[in-house]
Amino acid sequence: MTVVALSGGVGGAKLALGLSRVLPEGELLVVCNTGDDFEHLGLCISPDIDTVMYTLAGVANPELGWGRADETWSFMETLGAIGGETWFRLGDRDLAVHVERTRRLRGGMTLSAITADLCARLSIAARVLPMSDDPVRTRVRTDQGWIDFQEYFVRRRCEPVVHELAFHGASTARAQPDFMAALRDPDTKAVVICPSNPFISIEPILAIPGVRTALADCSAPVIAVSPIIGGRAIKGPTAKMMAELGMTPSAGGVARRYDALIDGYVCDFADMDQVAGVSAKVTLAQTLMSTLADREALARVVLSAARMLRR
Amino acid sequence: MTVVALSGGVGGAKLALGLSRVLPEGELLVVCNTGDDFEHLGLCISPDIDTVMYTLAGVANPELGWGRADETWSFMETLGAIGGETWFRLGDRDLAVHVERTRRLRGGMTLSAITADLCARLSIAARVLPMSDDPVRTRVRTDQGWIDFQEYFVRRRCEPVVHELAFHGASTARAQPDFMAALRDPDTKAVVICPSNPFISIEPILAIPGVRTALADCSAPVIAVSPIIGGRAIKGPTAKMMAELGMTPSAGGVARRYDALIDGYVCDFADMDQVAGVSAKVTLAQTLMSTLADREALARVVLSAARMLRR
Repeated sequence: MTVVALSGGVGGAKLALGLSRVLPEGELLVVCNTGDDFEHLGLCISPDIDTVMYTLAGVANPELGWGRADETWSFMETLGAIGGETWFRLGDRDLAVHVERTRRLRGGMTLSAITADLCARLSIAARVLPMSDDPVRTRVRTDQGWIDFQEYFVRRRCEPVVHELAFHGASTARAQPDFMAALRDPDTKAVVICPSNPFISIEPILAIPGVRTALADCSAPVIAVSPIIGGRAIKGPTAKMMAELGMTPSAGGVARRYDALIDGYVCDFADMDQVAGVSAKVTLAQTLMSTLADREALARVVLSAARMLRR
Repeated sequence: MTVVALSGGVGGAKLALGLSRVLPEGELLVVCNTGDDFEHLGLCISPDIDTVMYTLAGVANPELGWGRADETWSFMETLGAIGGETWFRLGDRDLAVHVERTRRLRGGMTLSAITADLCARLSIAARVLPMSDDPVRTRVRTDQGWIDFQEYFVRRRCEPVVHELAFHGASTARAQPDFMAALRDPDTKAVVICPSNPFISIEPILAIPGVRTALADCSAPVIAVSPIIGGRAIKGPTAKMMAELGMTPSAGGVARRYDALIDGYVCDFADMDQVAGVSAKVTLAQTLMSTLADREALARVVLSAARMLRR
């Protein structure tokens, strides 16, 4: 009885944590976007996998929204002093994961196997998978041409106007087999699209051959949770990006973007007026997840909406 | 008017610091052993260069004798928690140098150029050179067969009995050109073999084609400083290794090992009786360098001995 959650970073990780706490142990499978992955300072960095892992392990940095709690910054401070690149901040503890992952990847281990082992070391009960073991790299077309995702997202702080997104490698990437198996499994009880940015966190997953078809064919209901509350994204450039791409930055806009892919849609009470024409079954809820209780409550709402759709 | 100092790690770095403080700025060229270099956790690590750099920059860790002062250990602690290898301890600040060096080496920069830039960033006035930009790797034949140097030195704490040393890559390595140019330069006023382990710190340098000949042909006197005081090595396995290799672990034994290569030999008052038959001109001094004043004093003794030999 698996619940499959598709997730990007922070917002997705919060709901994944809620789901992991309200579901029986072993029933949650979190599939992470790896379009944000990149090589930096010679290290292989998987920001969304790490945010999900750290959040599920209870070691995420509560102030920053990324990286680890009880972090120190000696590496970054010294790197700056010797002329290294410091625009992408890597904490000393966080760095251990990047160095170890890079070492194992270069030794031929898959990202899936590495992630599974790291999760075991961090005592995470949920299964966390990359969307694929093949590299997929999100690129962004801006006024200044195509740039790499982290260049856009971190270095330029999402300031450039976005015209188009591309997921390099996606068309030849193989979806993670356990992810695909879960979508085909008649015992899977729900697929949850977490409240992540549709364009940069969810659509890279959907861009992998077979994923859209498998979601359409999946016997379990597919339920998305809106990352927009009252016309605004809680974190990140979702609303700005929607406007730049010519869409209405609203909860309804996100639902229309997912369109026939989703059976159910959970959005905030504040957005009741925005989802009138949405074809998926809408559930209104409090979607802002400030506390752990909020995360668990929203997870329960999503699972209950799924239960209704299964009947 | 250059002074060329050949150095390994701790002991050599102490004398190099003394020399850098008593010589006019720009007159010291420190040539570091790179036989200790190795790849670990996917990073290119140059222990002797780093010890020399950190010592000259005044940022060396005074308690450990390696690594940096004001160090933090979050990386190592976390690496251990996720199952990484922790036998070679890398501090968070130290790590910045390894990550940045590795990135630049993989980008095609030479170790010499990287070292020069790091020294500039660390405001080091002396020039610090690797003995070669080509990789040389010291290996140790023990009772359990051949093992890599750091495996012997750090992981097994010099416990295995040493039968033989080999410097892989040395026979095809090219000596650093500025090092060779300094040996040929008639203005060079002294070559100092620092109080480092002859077998694992100095002989890798001597194993590079052309170095022994250039030292023999050098117009400046070559003066070695004994790493043995009163029959004991201050740090490291010099005495133990000498005994295992069938030599007398004494200041005289080291001088005989260098033999015709050296014109002068500086050893401790305590070893006066050990150097009776040594062919190089012997200068007795206090060679234990506990304080900064000791380092400067020994540097002055060495330079004065060189001056005497030049006449």
